[in-house]
Amino acid sequence: MNPVSLETLNDAGREAFAAMLGDVMELAPWVAEQAYTARPFASVAALYQAMTDAVRKAGDVPQRALIEGHPDLAGKAAREGKLTADSTAEQVGAGLDRLSEEEFAAFHGLNSAYRKKFGMPFIVCVRRHGKESILREFERRLQNDAAAEREAALGEIFRIAALRLDQRVTGPDKLKVHGHLSTHVLDVHDGHPAESVAIELCEIEAGGGARILRRTVTNADGRTEKPLFGGTPIPIATYELRFAVGEYFARLHTPMSDPPFLSIVPVRFAVAEPEGKYHVPLLVSPWSYSTYRGS
Amino acid sequence: MNPVSLETLNDAGREAFAAMLGDVMELAPWVAEQAYTARPFASVAALYQAMTDAVRKAGDVPQRALIEGHPDLAGKAAREGKLTADSTAEQVGAGLDRLSEEEFAAFHGLNSAYRKKFGMPFIVCVRRHGKESILREFERRLQNDAAAEREAALGEIFRIAALRLDQRVTGPDKLKVHGHLSTHVLDVHDGHPAESVAIELCEIEAGGGARILRRTVTNADGRTEKPLFGGTPIPIATYELRFAVGEYFARLHTPMSDPPFLSIVPVRFAVAEPEGKYHVPLLVSPWSYSTYRGS
Amino acid sequence: MNPVSLETLNDAGREAFAAMLGDVMELAPWVAEQAYTARPFASVAALYQAMTDAVRKAGDVPQRALIEGHPDLAGKAAREGKLTADSTAEQVGAGLDRLSEEEFAAFHGLNSAYRKKFGMPFIVCVRRHGKESILREFERRLQNDAAAEREAALGEIFRIAALRLDQRVTGPDKLKVHGHLSTHVLDVHDGHPAESVAIELCEIEAGGGARILRRTVTNADGRTEKPLFGGTPIPIATYELRFAVGEYFARLHTPMSDPPFLSIVPVRFAVAEPEGKYHVPLLVSPWSYSTYRGS
Amino acid sequence: MNPVSLETLNDAGREAFAAMLGDVMELAPWVAEQAYTARPFASVAALYQAMTDAVRKAGDVPQRALIEGHPDLAGKAAREGKLTADSTAEQVGAGLDRLSEEEFAAFHGLNSAYRKKFGMPFIVCVRRHGKESILREFERRLQNDAAAEREAALGEIFRIAALRLDQRVTGPDKLKVHGHLSTHVLDVHDGHPAESVAIELCEIEAGGGARILRRTVTNADGRTEKPLFGGTPIPIATYELRFAVGEYFARLHTPMSDPPFLSIVPVRFAVAEPEGKYHVPLLVSPWSYSTYRGS
Repeated sequence: MNPVSLETLNDAGREAFAAMLGDVMELAPWVAEQAYTARPFASVAALYQAMTDAVRKAGDVPQRALIEGHPDLAGKAAREGKLTADSTAEQVGAGLDRLSEEEFAAFHGLNSAYRKKFGMPFIVCVRRHGKESILREFERRLQNDAAAEREAALGEIFRIAALRLDQRVTGPDKLKVHGHLSTHVLDVHDGHPAESVAIELCEIEAGGGARILRRTVTNADGRTEKPLFGGTPIPIATYELRFAVGEYFARLHTPMSDPPFLSIVPVRFAVAEPEGKYHVPLLVSPWSYSTYRGS
Repeated sequence: MNPVSLETLNDAGREAFAAMLGDVMELAPWVAEQAYTARPFASVAALYQAMTDAVRKAGDVPQRALIEGHPDLAGKAAREGKLTADSTAEQVGAGLDRLSEEEFAAFHGLNSAYRKKFGMPFIVCVRRHGKESILREFERRLQNDAAAEREAALGEIFRIAALRLDQRVTGPDKLKVHGHLSTHVLDVHDGHPAESVAIELCEIEAGGGARILRRTVTNADGRTEKPLFGGTPIPIATYELRFAVGEYFARLHTPMSDPPFLSIVPVRFAVAEPEGKYHVPLLVSPWSYSTYRGS
Repeated sequence: MNPVSLETLNDAGREAFAAMLGDVMELAPWVAEQAYTARPFASVAALYQAMTDAVRKAGDVPQRALIEGHPDLAGKAAREGKLTADSTAEQVGAGLDRLSEEEFAAFHGLNSAYRKKFGMPFIVCVRRHGKESILREFERRLQNDAAAEREAALGEIFRIAALRLDQRVTGPDKLKVHGHLSTHVLDVHDGHPAESVAIELCEIEAGGGARILRRTVTNADGRTEKPLFGGTPIPIATYELRFAVGEYFARLHTPMSDPPFLSIVPVRFAVAEPEGKYHVPLLVSPWSYSTYRGS
Repeated sequence: MNPVSLETLNDAGREAFAAMLGDVMELAPWVAEQAYTARPFASVAALYQAMTDAVRKAGDVPQRALIEGHPDLAGKAAREGKLTADSTAEQVGAGLDRLSEEEFAAFHGLNSAYRKKFGMPFIVCVRRHGKESILREFERRLQNDAAAEREAALGEIFRIAALRLDQRVTGPDKLKVHGHLSTHVLDVHDGHPAESVAIELCEIEAGGGARILRRTVTNADGRTEKPLFGGTPIPIATYELRFAVGEYFARLHTPMSDPPFLSIVPVRFAVAEPEGKYHVPLLVSPWSYSTYRGS
């Protein structure tokens, strides 16, 4: 679905409005209907605010219904293909459709324990997390009391809504729901940006395995044409950048040992703030390198 | 077998001498017998020189016999347990007893091609190489002409002999057959050596897999009690040091993100000179690190 | 004088045109008059090209007159205030009005030697050089033969003209006559840009003395609001950036020794390309730092 | 005077003992005489302990006399050449014989203020301090109350005594009165120690001026043959190491800009622990460097 402009939403009738935003809150079109009355919206942030206000003001019973409208993570509904389009895309994006047996068992056990303790499904904005981070959240939130957990669930619902709004609505402003991951390779042997360095971005999994997310190459300024992540949250996870510096220096006929001391340079780091700015550069000679969280 | 002193060798009778050194050159006790006549030896280097001189002076036919006395790498004799004790230990050390089907096929193919071209077994001092490095040598040397390859084979036989002598004989000197790999972790957040950092040394295999060779920990000076390699050649291969810096900084209650930006820092490098000195330190804060080939 | 737009120049009559550009080539209004015939100019670069073409086509006698119209560097005319406004500003900018006795004598001697050898004044685009760099150029060019030196003099006249045009004329393009020097301070102790770090930029003189050119401070992104050099060439010279990191870390109550290990961090470097991009960042903890030519 | 062995001291009669150690505590031979009764000493540390015990047990009046036996720093006695040999050497070593007018006035004023407040001379172990550090100590200790300052004065007397003992007596142990400053230059362009790099060690003075303390050069291992400081305390002060890396890379014909981006690399740092170990290495390419407090 193409995004709709804020202007169009402001001019829309109640029905059209609800049709466009009814699924921003999972199975709760009433939230969009409530928000309709607050038109016109000067900004996407104001629209988001109106929707969360509608939930806050609705009181206990509708809130509980909203929460219960959410599916289990990696649950029965997901396996049977019975999720909403949004939920399906979100769970697939987080890798919940390709769990190992052990992971599936872990999710199943946590879902049960959570339902038993809180009587509701566990809700987390999965686009902000990798698989292990979801499991860690699960365990952490199982320690909460009911009131804190109710609040945590609403908070996650609002995060999910903000990301859905960000995809559906264009306006004069952007919600602060995106992170940014970039790199930069500097050749300190010759004192200039390193061009045409092949880079892989991997996600490192619990067992140490690496899943390649992206393959790219540096341009004349030593940067990648597009950020490694941008326009989405960066899932909380461990990543590894792999820089093919051996090939790079070989192409420049830089004297090196055989095999070269440095060939693939792996830089492993974790993202803790999905909406943060992560710049992870590499300063490299054939015999040394450094890296850091830059800005 | 315990090493024997040079003094003892100098005092030994011909038979005892030959018994002690007869297997330094594979299946060629005549080399030790020849060297016997050059006694006494002022140094292990002189003894080594006497043995290589004996081979050089022996001329074509005995040299060819010496070469042909060597077993194939990962060949039939190895699988059937028919190698000399030395050759067995050397091939096992290089991992030739645990080849995958593909690797085994590769060795088999190269052995055949080599025998076909040169009419002799392929000889390489396997203690100086990892598996991939042996395969690379194989391919490189298949390009040689017969004379160059004959010379290459003798060179490798002499390297094997030097390492065997180094293990069997103690004297006032040491043959230059050992490499040295060490590390050092410096905490640049607090300006002192990083103590109790857990370190793994892995060998990185062709497919990207990692085989753990050693687990150790830094002492109060940020170094390991023993070198990571010392007293042997460092096989030509790709290695990865993995430094558990996240745990280290957590123990010091250093403020970090959750999860920490740096947890395991992998430093991947190749060794090209088995007899070289490789010092690979890590200068690290919770947000940055650098490494280099030091001295 | 305010810059004039290329459009205005294209619309101007011959006299107005010459009035506006007559002094772009020192004491040679005929160059602008020649260029007038090539109107209209699509770009400042085209205008510049027309003026240099006019000189090239004029042949030997006018070229020699153009060269001889230039004043000596730090010469009698300068001391007596008899230079054109442009030449005065240029010589003052390069520090030629505040020479020591020794430097004055050096310039005087080189002027005489140069005139004796080549029969013309020594011309160099002083805005691209510090004092020592001018002296080095002087000595280097004294080695030239007459033809090479004639060419060198014209080249410098064109550089001077390009910088004068750049100041006088605005258009759709910019001549490539500007350098860029910037810095960036990153706190690798806490993993973020270092804000409010006081920075001095000095020029380092031959005897080792330092002349402060600029004092500034980093912003929230660890950068300075304006580049340290921008919109002009960076004179070929040795510079030192001095970063007050001790004060910075003290403000953050970072644990340090007393006195702190690092207080003022000096970073000394030379600029060789006046039109180049020099980014010289500092990555710093209280116990370590690194710097490099970045991009 | 040549050092005397602990053995000789243990065997000496009372008078000889006192003659050898009578001036360890300024103008207080009774301290050595008291210590004599505690012979024999198993270590230099035990001898030192016996002397400080003697002072501690002597009580108020002799302690006060001991304190008052010390000369003013940069005072009248010093100018008139009336100090003991030890005090003269110590004050000269700290540069107190070459004060500027302003510094002299500062010392004079502080001496007067101190005597007025505490009725005794200001005592500090000057071999542990540079000039500015002494002035800072002066100002800091002027804030003390009488009891704390009495204790501070005794503490400094003991430090002075320890350094005098360290010079006069050899034994099985060494008092921990020495610091260690070293460096190491690593060429990360070519991946080996940087040999024949000229290094200057300067002390940076309050006004920013630099006094050269030592000139040296790196050996094949990139280190200096002798430590920059060793066998003495390192005076608390700001230092600058200046590494002539431009010359070094030029000798190796490393491609560089003209003038080279890096020529002299200054590394400025302060020493806070005179008995500490300071290792300040430089990792350098023609376009980048890093430094840190190592170990």
